[in-house]
Amino acid sequence: MGDRTNSGPLVIIGGAEDKENNCTVLREFVRLAGGTKARIAVFTAATSMPGEVADDYIRVFERLGVERVSIIHTEKREDGDRPAAVKDVQQSTGIFFTGGDQARIIDFVKGTKVDIALRSRHAEGVVICGTSAGAAMMPDVMIVEGRSQISPRVDVVEMGPGMGFLPGIVIDQHFAQRGRLGRLISALVQQPANLGFGIDEDTALIVDGNELTVVGSGSVTVVDEVGATYNNLDNLLADEHLAVHGVTLHILPAKFRFDLTTREPIAPQK
Amino acid sequence: MGDRTNSGPLVIIGGAEDKENNCTVLREFVRLAGGTKARIAVFTAATSMPGEVADDYIRVFERLGVERVSIIHTEKREDGDRPAAVKDVQQSTGIFFTGGDQARIIDFVKGTKVDIALRSRHAEGVVICGTSAGAAMMPDVMIVEGRSQISPRVDVVEMGPGMGFLPGIVIDQHFAQRGRLGRLISALVQQPANLGFGIDEDTALIVDGNELTVVGSGSVTVVDEVGATYNNLDNLLADEHLAVHGVTLHILPAKFRFDLTTREPIAPQK
Repeated sequence: MGDRTNSGPLVIIGGAEDKENNCTVLREFVRLAGGTKARIAVFTAATSMPGEVADDYIRVFERLGVERVSIIHTEKREDGDRPAAVKDVQQSTGIFFTGGDQARIIDFVKGTKVDIALRSRHAEGVVICGTSAGAAMMPDVMIVEGRSQISPRVDVVEMGPGMGFLPGIVIDQHFAQRGRLGRLISALVQQPANLGFGIDEDTALIVDGNELTVVGSGSVTVVDEVGATYNNLDNLLADEHLAVHGVTLHILPAKFRFDLTTREPIAPQK
Repeated sequence: MGDRTNSGPLVIIGGAEDKENNCTVLREFVRLAGGTKARIAVFTAATSMPGEVADDYIRVFERLGVERVSIIHTEKREDGDRPAAVKDVQQSTGIFFTGGDQARIIDFVKGTKVDIALRSRHAEGVVICGTSAGAAMMPDVMIVEGRSQISPRVDVVEMGPGMGFLPGIVIDQHFAQRGRLGRLISALVQQPANLGFGIDEDTALIVDGNELTVVGSGSVTVVDEVGATYNNLDNLLADEHLAVHGVTLHILPAKFRFDLTTREPIAPQK
């Protein structure tokens, strides 16, 4: 894991966050973005319904008192180089990625001028938040797609390059709701990364330096494969099951923290 | 865990086992029951459709060459004391429990004369097999019902007395297919048992003495909470999340074994 202590925070949401009631998770993101003084740039790259999705987030961010919401629509790669979009990002105090298909974020944003601008803002301390596909894209190697509700097999997940905001780990979203233990373990077994975070719906992992904190109505399942052993992957065909021995699992509800350096959970202060 | 070395084997199936094609799981049960010389007593206690379910198993067991299949219908507790049923059990070389609702097995069978007869046969070495509800009932304390696809909470599972054929553990079935990690962990946290087996569909755990072997098309997820710590259960209300730290997880596909004494997986011989 790289040392992230000089970058802004990350808010990694497992999808389906509350936008109608207390908005616990989005509220934390807006607070980190500057509260009522926040200027938020919403990236709709992942979704094939950018108009509707943007409207939902404009509504909730305005309700929470955000000063300015700009929408960065990128439906092809050239859109990522538009000067107006770059300017919106440069002026933002918070970056938000919607759900949809994580591959579209890589295709339409990664390496474009808005990407350079948002990485520069993040290095200056600006928070980056993503939900669902916007969460999946956070690692350097991400789950592109995969099957849920199945035990670990070679062919359960397809991996590909992510945005790399939190390297050395794997994120999975809608975790308990879609039964994705097998998918996350399949991803970890086939990657150099050996630490995975399965984030429930309406739940987020807030990354601040090397400390992670859970917020929201669900839990984060930490899958640590550092001491695990596998059956011989070279001998396995695509539809054959992975055997995995000695995985360490932690289940962290809201207020629990996790230290990326020691790889240990931290209970909240009494 | 009690020492089971003097009893017959158990075949614990995670539900939805193949009855049309190779019947890998049921084939192993029939082999342990004596192959073509097997006399199998099928308990339909769990199901509210005993006629249809019995017909399915008569068909598959006859196809596999079983010499005799007797059906033990128990739709009320008195049915468990019928002399004809007791005689069928006494003459059986294999006992089979269908799926349905595990509470019905306890209500209609546990403590009746057929139960005494089947425990006596089991002590003599006869195999007991159960699928789905028939798997859930195997421990001394079983999952009566619960919610799937949710992270661990106090109110996720209701526990109750099981048949006690494999004490000191908890079984969950349809495991990967229904996303039941949270449910199995919730059960273990609230029980003295600290070893759980999540069995996939069309997959079985064969228990022979203290050695367990996986057969079938899925995997068995072993959840070992012996070194785990929890948040303070006394402070938690029903809808609040459980924090669990340091669970050990193993995923065992077909041919992998698990030793109940050492609590370690064993890879198949090369």
